Amino acid sequence: MKKFTSEKLHNEVVLRDPVHGYIHIEDKVILDILKSKEFQRMRRIKQLGPVSYVFPGATHTRFEHNLGVYELTRQICNIFAKKYPSQTPADGLWDDNNRLLVECAAILHDIGHGPYSHTFEHLFGTNHEKIGQEIITNPNTEVNQALRQVDPEFPGLVASVIAKTYPNPQVVKMISSQADADRMDYLQRDAYFTGVSYGHFDISRVLRVIRPYKDGICFNNNGMHAVEDYIVSRYQMYQQVYFHRVGRSMEVILHHLLQRAKDVYQEGKILVTPELAKFLEGNWTLADYLKLDDGVMETNFSMWTDSSDEILADLANRYLFRKQLASIKITDSTKPLLPKLKQLIKEAGFDPTYYTEVNSAFDEPYDAYKPTGKNANSQIEIMQDDGSLIELSEMSPLVKALNGTFQGDERFFFPKTMLAKNIDPQIFDPIYQEFAKYVHNGQLQFKTE
Amino acid sequence: MKKFTSEKLHNEVVLRDPVHGYIHIEDKVILDILKSKEFQRMRRIKQLGPVSYVFPGATHTRFEHNLGVYELTRQICNIFAKKYPSQTPADGLWDDNNRLLVECAAILHDIGHGPYSHTFEHLFGTNHEKIGQEIITNPNTEVNQALRQVDPEFPGLVASVIAKTYPNPQVVKMISSQADADRMDYLQRDAYFTGVSYGHFDISRVLRVIRPYKDGICFNNNGMHAVEDYIVSRYQMYQQVYFHRVGRSMEVILHHLLQRAKDVYQEGKILVTPELAKFLEGNWTLADYLKLDDGVMETNFSMWTDSSDEILADLANRYLFRKQLASIKITDSTKPLLPKLKQLIKEAGFDPTYYTEVNSAFDEPYDAYKPTGKNANSQIEIMQDDGSLIELSEMSPLVKALNGTFQGDERFFFPKTMLAKNIDPQIFDPIYQEFAKYVHNGQLQFKTE
Amino acid sequence: MKKFTSEKLHNEVVLRDPVHGYIHIEDKVILDILKSKEFQRMRRIKQLGPVSYVFPGATHTRFEHNLGVYELTRQICNIFAKKYPSQTPADGLWDDNNRLLVECAAILHDIGHGPYSHTFEHLFGTNHEKIGQEIITNPNTEVNQALRQVDPEFPGLVASVIAKTYPNPQVVKMISSQADADRMDYLQRDAYFTGVSYGHFDISRVLRVIRPYKDGICFNNNGMHAVEDYIVSRYQMYQQVYFHRVGRSMEVILHHLLQRAKDVYQEGKILVTPELAKFLEGNWTLADYLKLDDGVMETNFSMWTDSSDEILADLANRYLFRKQLASIKITDSTKPLLPKLKQLIKEAGFDPTYYTEVNSAFDEPYDAYKPTGKNANSQIEIMQDDGSLIELSEMSPLVKALNGTFQGDERFFFPKTMLAKNIDPQIFDPIYQEFAKYVHNGQLQFKTE
Amino acid sequence: MKKFTSEKLHNEVVLRDPVHGYIHIEDKVILDILKSKEFQRMRRIKQLGPVSYVFPGATHTRFEHNLGVYELTRQICNIFAKKYPSQTPADGLWDDNNRLLVECAAILHDIGHGPYSHTFEHLFGTNHEKIGQEIITNPNTEVNQALRQVDPEFPGLVASVIAKTYPNPQVVKMISSQADADRMDYLQRDAYFTGVSYGHFDISRVLRVIRPYKDGICFNNNGMHAVEDYIVSRYQMYQQVYFHRVGRSMEVILHHLLQRAKDVYQEGKILVTPELAKFLEGNWTLADYLKLDDGVMETNFSMWTDSSDEILADLANRYLFRKQLASIKITDSTKPLLPKLKQLIKEAGFDPTYYTEVNSAFDEPYDAYKPTGKNANSQIEIMQDDGSLIELSEMSPLVKALNGTFQGDERFFFPKTMLAKNIDPQIFDPIYQEFAKYVHNGQLQFKTE
Repeated sequence: MKKFTSEKLHNEVVLRDPVHGYIHIEDKVILDILKSKEFQRMRRIKQLGPVSYVFPGATHTRFEHNLGVYELTRQICNIFAKKYPSQTPADGLWDDNNRLLVECAAILHDIGHGPYSHTFEHLFGTNHEKIGQEIITNPNTEVNQALRQVDPEFPGLVASVIAKTYPNPQVVKMISSQADADRMDYLQRDAYFTGVSYGHFDISRVLRVIRPYKDGICFNNNGMHAVEDYIVSRYQMYQQVYFHRVGRSMEVILHHLLQRAKDVYQEGKILVTPELAKFLEGNWTLADYLKLDDGVMETNFSMWTDSSDEILADLANRYLFRKQLASIKITDSTKPLLPKLKQLIKEAGFDPTYYTEVNSAFDEPYDAYKPTGKNANSQIEIMQDDGSLIELSEMSPLVKALNGTFQGDERFFFPKTMLAKNIDPQIFDPIYQEFAKYVHNGQLQFKTE
Repeated sequence: MKKFTSEKLHNEVVLRDPVHGYIHIEDKVILDILKSKEFQRMRRIKQLGPVSYVFPGATHTRFEHNLGVYELTRQICNIFAKKYPSQTPADGLWDDNNRLLVECAAILHDIGHGPYSHTFEHLFGTNHEKIGQEIITNPNTEVNQALRQVDPEFPGLVASVIAKTYPNPQVVKMISSQADADRMDYLQRDAYFTGVSYGHFDISRVLRVIRPYKDGICFNNNGMHAVEDYIVSRYQMYQQVYFHRVGRSMEVILHHLLQRAKDVYQEGKILVTPELAKFLEGNWTLADYLKLDDGVMETNFSMWTDSSDEILADLANRYLFRKQLASIKITDSTKPLLPKLKQLIKEAGFDPTYYTEVNSAFDEPYDAYKPTGKNANSQIEIMQDDGSLIELSEMSPLVKALNGTFQGDERFFFPKTMLAKNIDPQIFDPIYQEFAKYVHNGQLQFKTE
Repeated sequence: MKKFTSEKLHNEVVLRDPVHGYIHIEDKVILDILKSKEFQRMRRIKQLGPVSYVFPGATHTRFEHNLGVYELTRQICNIFAKKYPSQTPADGLWDDNNRLLVECAAILHDIGHGPYSHTFEHLFGTNHEKIGQEIITNPNTEVNQALRQVDPEFPGLVASVIAKTYPNPQVVKMISSQADADRMDYLQRDAYFTGVSYGHFDISRVLRVIRPYKDGICFNNNGMHAVEDYIVSRYQMYQQVYFHRVGRSMEVILHHLLQRAKDVYQEGKILVTPELAKFLEGNWTLADYLKLDDGVMETNFSMWTDSSDEILADLANRYLFRKQLASIKITDSTKPLLPKLKQLIKEAGFDPTYYTEVNSAFDEPYDAYKPTGKNANSQIEIMQDDGSLIELSEMSPLVKALNGTFQGDERFFFPKTMLAKNIDPQIFDPIYQEFAKYVHNGQLQFKTE
Repeated sequence: MKKFTSEKLHNEVVLRDPVHGYIHIEDKVILDILKSKEFQRMRRIKQLGPVSYVFPGATHTRFEHNLGVYELTRQICNIFAKKYPSQTPADGLWDDNNRLLVECAAILHDIGHGPYSHTFEHLFGTNHEKIGQEIITNPNTEVNQALRQVDPEFPGLVASVIAKTYPNPQVVKMISSQADADRMDYLQRDAYFTGVSYGHFDISRVLRVIRPYKDGICFNNNGMHAVEDYIVSRYQMYQQVYFHRVGRSMEVILHHLLQRAKDVYQEGKILVTPELAKFLEGNWTLADYLKLDDGVMETNFSMWTDSSDEILADLANRYLFRKQLASIKITDSTKPLLPKLKQLIKEAGFDPTYYTEVNSAFDEPYDAYKPTGKNANSQIEIMQDDGSLIELSEMSPLVKALNGTFQGDERFFFPKTMLAKNIDPQIFDPIYQEFAKYVHNGQLQFKTE
């Protein structure tokens, strides 16, 4: 491994961080990345998007998260370099020549994200991974200029680590695996800012037992319970925060709002800022993408509240002022009832295309613990006293219980008004009376008259 | 006191809050205020403005802070109602008929704030206090509609509490005094989100010893040290967070940026969103004001980075991408040197009007502990065993040390490039060489050649 | 239900508590119990006995734990009285006339414990439950005198709540069930003082969703995950703290030490304080029992280090100065090897009776989550929107995984010296060489030469 | 400086610590010290003695504190070695050859303490500093044996660091100065275990700015406020915890109890354990001293509760069961009234010698911030950008306020019964009526009839 080095800063720079205490920056290249426009832009993109509508404290941004992933990666490198330094090329230990590479990959792993990535990508065909690769490798970006100082090859290598094509599995898995610096940061950070108590696991113990081995990264035997607890924390955060029905409701509205904007854009009923216009026209560049952020999107939404298109104006209002949709749990057996519900909703005056949606938490971009499948080698391994490895779920009854079974639910979202009868039994409108017959205990049910 | 009552919610609503655990909402009027457009809008206005450029975690908004002030007020009312219920009109104890009134005043005390209030008001002649009064009393706002449900007089009374003209001093001082729910919330909240350790004081003890008396609110003797610690926490937060030179630098840039926008608006060199245009034209309404938020401002700044006006474009870039100004401490005796510095700055190619500023932390909108002066009755009183009162600084050597002496400093801000010589002694440009002679240990000094 | 009342204190008394913030005492009877000799004595009995040998911070005592259980019980009563007050005798809601009773039962639920209860009871035939009942009902104790002030019947009723014979299941289960104030306090407290991060669950959410129903206490649907997390916390605390092999090793030594003292007492080789002498003679009274505490036991051990009985002196030294035994995991299939190991240990000069033990963590006094079995009605129920109940493990995959399967292990303890060969391969003593063949990866194994 | 090295442990040993997370042990000599009898004995000596009577959580021991001081010292050495390594003998930077020496001095700095050191020393003429030196240098102790492994000179050098005679001021001041590892640990630790919120300062920032200089240890300019906050924390902990009147009351009782034991020992009215007997006889050895701990003392007190000497039995009961004395503040001007009060107390049946005491918090063993005086060079210095030093109180108005002025109070302790009239105005006993005239607002006052 060629050793890449960066000019060291004369004085270490630190940033205060509520999760890790301090972020420590010792290399000029890291500081230059931090100062780049592409990175600073992430200050204006919330980490959890509409989740702050449910947990008001969750206003933290991708900026801090990326710094946090960098900081954890830096700490893991320190631990590996001290405790497991490689002596010979194939000894399965840590070659610290990879440090600068993995630190840069860590701080840049999410650089391609824009506002509301998931919804936005779905509608406009953008791809945050590809855009991230471009930001890193395109010579016009400040990020690329920072990386090139190290070596002309360096940007490409950083991109390959993020793309998981870099040959050293320890380097790749430090930032992309079932127990990587990315997840370890966001669980703690999201817990801190939402204020829930579920994301806390024993990070100091996890860092005590993390270690390299020839195929990647594993954990020593005596820390099995700390790793187990980390998996349980992930499960809890998904159940309690990421899959919260109100957050999903806001995402449904956002999706419909942007869809409606696309649909009516040609009719000219809509004021749009220059950059977003490019996306509505399907004709955007990287520079346009880099001008988007949460505030730009919301500024557009705010202008749309005055649109002559009533649906657009209503959806923009709903999104900006948190007028969420209602929802009920559905199952494969009750799904056949949905057309009837949509019919009632239409009769009540709402266009089902823009006011209803089936949303499944299972297909969220957050993948739960999955030791087998297409990416089978990402399972979490626990190293025994004699150096052999045992996969985590074989040692932990809790992880076994969660293993491979996606948790979550599928819900049908619709305007709250439809539940009028369920809330106030005095309502006599026959539409609401009919609707009420299909809902019991928050679930869709077969009508039992 | 007339008793105002609100419909009680069937089920209490709670919001998770990292600082207070939960915000508890039991009254429909509070929930309706929370749901109003004017209140929801505060989700998009950061509590500390550019401070998040220094402390990345400080992305929390006025929305959460107002909820926090409400929650503390609610808790204080609970304590007063349980421990100090008034029996007769003039007994100096707590009349719980004021509860709903003070809770509404608490949640609405900052409702008039827009983005970057301080800077914005300075330039555009807005006034967040007056606007807040209007939001509460104007029959077209959703906030007013929520309040009117209680009683037609109610909005006016809520406004009077915030304006400190309401006759009951206990009610007024619960949200406006040297030790009120407002300060108690923001100190803790700002500390939590910045991640500094200075804002923590013993809130549980302060709440144990807080009590009403005939002229307002005081504290029992046995909690003197907790109140003392709260004052020290305030001092530390000002020194460490609110007066941080980098945050002030970003505010200086913001000020110049908006000034420049005003100056060039007539020339038409500038794309502006509809609402901000109204302010640049000096012709705005409440509805326009309510459309402003941090994102709208930053969207405008983002458009301005492409302006043909170079100064505007440069300042917009500086603000969005955190290219702060440098600064040095100045004193009355060294101020006479500033014209010379400005001359050098001009020679280096920067227009001093837009690239320099004298900024004093003393005139920040945050007032330090001040027991005397125009508002002399706001001093903090400690009740002795026999019911007599002693002013806090008479009991505490620490508070005495801080008493009446504003802490802070006065700084001169200018482009960082000017310090080139101070950073790299090899620089030979005579302008920088000359400039360097005036700077020592971060302070402006008389040149000693 | 007869209403029992106690004189209210003029001023509430509070004690600072790191876990709950403050312990609030409003009734004279609670204060009198707190001041009683029998209760003050618990200051000198550690909550976790020898666990402080593993986690040095775990020096907290039964005194604080009992106060904590009282405080949680008080808070639950407040919640029930506010949210679920009984209107008619059989409505399944909370009758607050039971408050004083359950608070007294809570603070006294462990009053019968002496030093090292588990080991001590085993050897001396004491029974902390019976002794607790006696302390409460015997008219000579200060506890009984405090309780009698309320009503002559009151001590008996308090005793019946602790004995679970009191007819109201809500009262009984508040302090004795799978999710009671006792467990909720000790999990948090033991986590705080040991410094581990596993015992933290969302107590504020659990208290938000706890509620009475006709057969006891259950939890509202929307708090299922908080209760689930509490069960996971319990599991983790057992695995990580209560079942720690070093703590168990110290308990094994303690057991052998006291056994040896009993065995040699008749021979007069042993100095003993007057009260412990009574137990060694098998002739003790309640007054003797109440004189025992950790310090008295350790003072005896300290005197025994000078005993002419070598085994006694050695074991006393080992206990006082933390010279733990080694241990290995055993299974039913490897147990047949133990006689061979004991033979080697004997050959190495240690009497196996006093220097070896099979210790199973499964039979510790801490029972894991157990919804079925002899006490089947103690399962945790979650109340659905329509008032129906679902048992927790049916809703939670994690709890289902833990349900009914005791976690833990069985270990064989022996002198560390026996592992000499495993630690230093240069050792040639044939005894140690032979012993080493039976140990691999911390487990007993069949010899494979 | 000769470099002393210790065998490195094959695997680092860690102990969980609630304050520092983990205590890291890398050297065999440190582990051997930890395992020594003299060190393990500190598990049985509470750090704060009778303070746990006021703050029930404060059961932590000198064992953990010493480990904590060691851990902080280790961290400071790491920081110094990385950031300020000495290049030439007189460059004023850190010579890491001193590391093992200062770590051993840190962990052993309190090794001479016995139970209730302050009171015990006063009565029995022991001296914990001298005893500490002896434990370290006497070849019969396990501590000395551990240290001698390093070098025959090593024990003497360790002792000299603790005695402050070692020539390198950086080494000495790391554990003995106004801002040393000792104070930094106990403030945080005592705050954690008492549960008060006052002892928290920003240790991570203090460690970021601590640095060596030629005369010792100072702090960088940019951390002035963190150091200031540490001084304020100390002040608050003294006011709120260490000087608490109830804790002092228990210490007064302890003092009188031991005094009485001494006074009546000759008469043989008293059962005593063998080691304490040696002290009552005035004829003790180091081995006797090392057998004392809190439990041994309390076991003696427990036996004394049955003594035929009534005063001894009463005082023992008071101490064990927390029957504190009352107290009032006194001043130089009111002190002349004390003989009259003592007379009344005698008339009420209490021997003033054993039931009253003037106790001044000023002469507690905890010294407040003191930059001048006999140890003038221990002031806290802040290093400016140009390397010059400014003493802390010149930069901080808060520290200036506390500078050189001992805070605290002087109190007169006496039996609570004497206040009967103050508590219950219906009391007509003339003694209590008379006594009441001298007490107002918790202070001694001149009688105003």
